[in-house]
Amino acid sequence: MSEPLFAKIALVGIGLIGSSLARVIRREKLAGELVVSTRRPETLARAAELGLGDRYTADAAEAVADADLVVVSVPVGASGDVAATIGPALKPGAIVTDAGSTKGSVIAQMQPHMPAGVHFIPGHPIAGTEHSGPDAGFAELFAGRWCILTPLAGTDAAALDRLTRFWQRCGSTVETMDPQHHDMVLAIVSHLPHIIAYNIVGTADDLEAVTKSEVIKYSASGFRDFTRLAASDPTMWRDVCLHNREAILEMLARFSEDLSSLQRAIRWGDGDKLFDLFARTRAVRRSIIEAGQEIDAPDFGRLARAERS
Amino acid sequence: MSEPLFAKIALVGIGLIGSSLARVIRREKLAGELVVSTRRPETLARAAELGLGDRYTADAAEAVADADLVVVSVPVGASGDVAATIGPALKPGAIVTDAGSTKGSVIAQMQPHMPAGVHFIPGHPIAGTEHSGPDAGFAELFAGRWCILTPLAGTDAAALDRLTRFWQRCGSTVETMDPQHHDMVLAIVSHLPHIIAYNIVGTADDLEAVTKSEVIKYSASGFRDFTRLAASDPTMWRDVCLHNREAILEMLARFSEDLSSLQRAIRWGDGDKLFDLFARTRAVRRSIIEAGQEIDAPDFGRLARAERS
Repeated sequence: MSEPLFAKIALVGIGLIGSSLARVIRREKLAGELVVSTRRPETLARAAELGLGDRYTADAAEAVADADLVVVSVPVGASGDVAATIGPALKPGAIVTDAGSTKGSVIAQMQPHMPAGVHFIPGHPIAGTEHSGPDAGFAELFAGRWCILTPLAGTDAAALDRLTRFWQRCGSTVETMDPQHHDMVLAIVSHLPHIIAYNIVGTADDLEAVTKSEVIKYSASGFRDFTRLAASDPTMWRDVCLHNREAILEMLARFSEDLSSLQRAIRWGDGDKLFDLFARTRAVRRSIIEAGQEIDAPDFGRLARAERS
Repeated sequence: MSEPLFAKIALVGIGLIGSSLARVIRREKLAGELVVSTRRPETLARAAELGLGDRYTADAAEAVADADLVVVSVPVGASGDVAATIGPALKPGAIVTDAGSTKGSVIAQMQPHMPAGVHFIPGHPIAGTEHSGPDAGFAELFAGRWCILTPLAGTDAAALDRLTRFWQRCGSTVETMDPQHHDMVLAIVSHLPHIIAYNIVGTADDLEAVTKSEVIKYSASGFRDFTRLAASDPTMWRDVCLHNREAILEMLARFSEDLSSLQRAIRWGDGDKLFDLFARTRAVRRSIIEAGQEIDAPDFGRLARAERS
């Protein structure tokens, strides 16, 4: 039998990302020993019930002692506290990475607590669903998805290579990127869409002239697509908004500017302008399907699912 | 064998809606004869190739002669022209309905051309996909979906009942509603979501700091959900914007107001306000799933599809 990639892996945080990692680590035999740590006793007990690791502890410092790889997957606002807790317990040569959706803020929070000799390599798997918690994870979450690593200046090449192989074994394709560029890219492809989705669902929920039951009943005509993102974990998304503020405000400003222009075209009946925008956006979806990041089935393939059920 | 519901049905327009109707009409044997009409010769030829009807003609007046039911499913901006064409050819007692996404404007365009003795009952099946054209249709499109009828004052009860039974046989549940209320409800559940989706895809497509290939690659983190709606038929959606202007501008104003407030919370770091909004929107999706208007699978069930392919 081949050696596992890491003798001991510690997962700090066992939500959607952590519990998906636990499952793929087991399936791919990537760890000699897998230790699971999370702060809330109920969540830790649930992880144990699900058999996600070899050992369980509420004490993150105890979890990371002797670990060769530590993956922190907690809401980004909690990164600093976790780093302060685990920093003193990390062994020299350990690789510490995270799965946070913002990178500049996570680096600012965690880096000061990382001892010399520890390889801190921030990361972000571009994968998820609207569900959260240890029950929501599944081993295939990272398959065919990208994982972005944002190594700092002077990062050890061997450590980066080993972490890259880890994510590849989880099914991902790894890219490296500057942390600031990551935060700008994610602001448009992820953070703005979530904020807009939360906002439109809130607007609909507040109407007086249209009842909630009408919004629910007729949601198949467009609205329901937004509700998936707006069902995402509120703590995680609060933290993303607070920790990638500059890039998000920039994207929001551009979005609002464009929306004002579109609104003006509607008010003044500028059909050509509307048609031009509505025609060019179609190509973007085609590209996403061709890139293998979306399935080529109408209505997200919901119909096929409904037929089988 | 039981009598078909209508001796002759004419479909004017054979896109996603028309061609789905053609398929379910055949499956359910709802027409003694089914005539298909559309203006563009290529589309008509394609409909014939697909065997969607019993007869095909580019002349809508010829198609509706002797028809007991006429269903007009064209972009709402074309409703007036179609009504002017078919009006003189309609037989007394015929039922004329449509499938347009706006009702006030369609009534204003079509009503003046409807001869006495013809039952004009505007309608709107709340069903669709992002695909368009005669190839995109399928018989199950209306199954489990709502169909809204907006009968005018003095509508013949027997005709309304017959049209209701028609949509029920297509799989839909029928509701009646005031046309103005319909336009307000659809502005929030359908028109605003499409406009927002088109807008955000446009904003992303215009960025200089983030490349198009990055937007495509990392789209699974949220952005791709918007691209489905933004891949919808541009002509149809231009017409919706032009023909439901007042209600759309009202909803856009509310959305923008709410977004400004959210933006302010991000700028000033008001985490509690963000959390409150992000937590209450989750319940809306749960209600939509419970109402049978969405499937209960993470990620719209995309994963299940991907696994099977």
